[in-house]
Amino acid sequence: MAKLTLSIDAMGGDNAPQMVVEGVEASLERFSDVKFLLFGDQAQLKPLLERHPNAKAVSEIRHTADIVTNEEKPGTALRGGRNSSMRLAIDAVGSGDADGVISAGNTGALMAMAKFVLKTLPGIDRPAIATYYPTLRGESVMLDLGANVECDAENLVQFAVMGEVFARNVLGLEQPSIGILNVGAEGLKGNEAVKKAALTLQTTQLPIKFYGFVEGDDIGAGTVDVVVTDGFTGNIALKTAEGTAKLFGVFLKEALTSTPMARFGALMARRALKAFKMRVDPRRYNGAMFLGLNGVCIKSHGGTDAVGFANAIHVAVELITNSLNEHIKKDYAKLSADTPFLKEAVAGE
Amino acid sequence: MAKLTLSIDAMGGDNAPQMVVEGVEASLERFSDVKFLLFGDQAQLKPLLERHPNAKAVSEIRHTADIVTNEEKPGTALRGGRNSSMRLAIDAVGSGDADGVISAGNTGALMAMAKFVLKTLPGIDRPAIATYYPTLRGESVMLDLGANVECDAENLVQFAVMGEVFARNVLGLEQPSIGILNVGAEGLKGNEAVKKAALTLQTTQLPIKFYGFVEGDDIGAGTVDVVVTDGFTGNIALKTAEGTAKLFGVFLKEALTSTPMARFGALMARRALKAFKMRVDPRRYNGAMFLGLNGVCIKSHGGTDAVGFANAIHVAVELITNSLNEHIKKDYAKLSADTPFLKEAVAGE
Repeated sequence: MAKLTLSIDAMGGDNAPQMVVEGVEASLERFSDVKFLLFGDQAQLKPLLERHPNAKAVSEIRHTADIVTNEEKPGTALRGGRNSSMRLAIDAVGSGDADGVISAGNTGALMAMAKFVLKTLPGIDRPAIATYYPTLRGESVMLDLGANVECDAENLVQFAVMGEVFARNVLGLEQPSIGILNVGAEGLKGNEAVKKAALTLQTTQLPIKFYGFVEGDDIGAGTVDVVVTDGFTGNIALKTAEGTAKLFGVFLKEALTSTPMARFGALMARRALKAFKMRVDPRRYNGAMFLGLNGVCIKSHGGTDAVGFANAIHVAVELITNSLNEHIKKDYAKLSADTPFLKEAVAGE
Repeated sequence: MAKLTLSIDAMGGDNAPQMVVEGVEASLERFSDVKFLLFGDQAQLKPLLERHPNAKAVSEIRHTADIVTNEEKPGTALRGGRNSSMRLAIDAVGSGDADGVISAGNTGALMAMAKFVLKTLPGIDRPAIATYYPTLRGESVMLDLGANVECDAENLVQFAVMGEVFARNVLGLEQPSIGILNVGAEGLKGNEAVKKAALTLQTTQLPIKFYGFVEGDDIGAGTVDVVVTDGFTGNIALKTAEGTAKLFGVFLKEALTSTPMARFGALMARRALKAFKMRVDPRRYNGAMFLGLNGVCIKSHGGTDAVGFANAIHVAVELITNSLNEHIKKDYAKLSADTPFLKEAVAGE
């Protein structure tokens, strides 16, 4: 594997830059062939790297004092944040200095800047935010998670194709199944966008495996490999799942500490409980992918820690080493060429 | 307490009518002052009641051979299902023979028929489906869960008011807080409907405690007492939570049976684990309320069992004994009269 270079917005996230440097250090346990460009305040980054010599050995500080705050509107950040750590980190991908960028900062600003600098892939109107999702059958991918609050059928069809390419090339599935998230499995339910998107995917000759509509509980069940939804619904579904997981964790802890006998049992089962906890650890799924951009851009959860940030780095490495964007580009062009009806059907609605 | 009469669609649900009769029997452990009118096939119901003498003692069969299937469209059911067990059960509330109706059948058909027969309360354009939701702080209420796939700001404001009245009168909260589900807490995020609804709730002088926007993870956290959303998002959020709960349950079970030591620990902690399981048992939250109708109508999950159906009966009894609809009617009229701006603001958008 050729040496990869990742550019990092070292100032993004609730506990940046410390969490970021620790995350870089933690990521080195998984791969050693990566170089990091850390964009941010040198006065803060230098002493942090001194305390993390492994990270220091593979990192290069690119100083800037400017940052994008969480409160900033995407448009304001885009216009006014040209020297921010976030923007310069993205610029490094645009200029070819880096192979991908990771930020735990303002999602809207990151998307706006990434779209402006990197542009979208041919045939994609709007990038989508995607994530891995643990299921009873293993792992699936869900998109969009908030980049596009309102989506039409054409957007959803594009998300379906991008998700399919992702599942094939990164999850390694031979023929991933695609479902559109809806309030019922029957064709007559739902809003106009999901109905039209489903009709398009059903009637075109696209060589993808369209399952049909899926419901909220199908996400965790793993009914399909790719769950397609608009950004409003996807964001709320994902965060509702996170909230439910948290609720469960708290209730379980309360139960297992409620009596001496429960505490004893939990002590005996501590290895199994630890494995369970790790399996549902949200940090394992940290690192949302901006799909549809002409470059790899990963958004880490703002409140994550070093373990979570290291995972976001891992996601970036996976997309780069699997040449995901090349696959999307090729497959999308091929799908469109093979099925002229796709373009027409989508364009005509 | 005066004796209540509940009408039951005995043929609705995956395991009806057996599950329904068993549910009636199970509900008698909680209250004895209820009489049941069971609408459905006498040939099936009679032998079932023979086997459940407690249920038989408080039930009266109202025979009909006609049923509404799960596949039927609401409009078709409304036109063609005049003699169905579902419709006759609703009619019993309309005619005053019963104080409330419970069905585990086709949700869309139930809503269409209930709206047609019972009508909406003054000031309410569209009824909403509401449910109790377990949270870290106790219990909250969430609506709409699927009655209205597309909602405008006016609908959301009406849901907020109904939810508030419910939380005050049934949950017994002095001043419940209301949140609108969105993809971010900042005012600038979200679609037009949620932004306008929030603006209306913020700027009118309604004597209700409007918290602002909440996100998906705030549902389980219990950030607010009433979570308001459109039916598309609410349905998907609720089912996603159910799916996540199931995923957690399976993962936990796998962990606790993975080794002899884990099994031993689980055995020692079995009481605590059982209490945990009961606390998150979805059957405890079975029984979705159709709010905004001029009559009590409860939708049970189609796949539930007797325990779940008994809980749906319990929900109906709670709404009736708390005179929820009278409160909604009074409070809604009062809120509109006190704040003429509400009507204008809502009407003007």
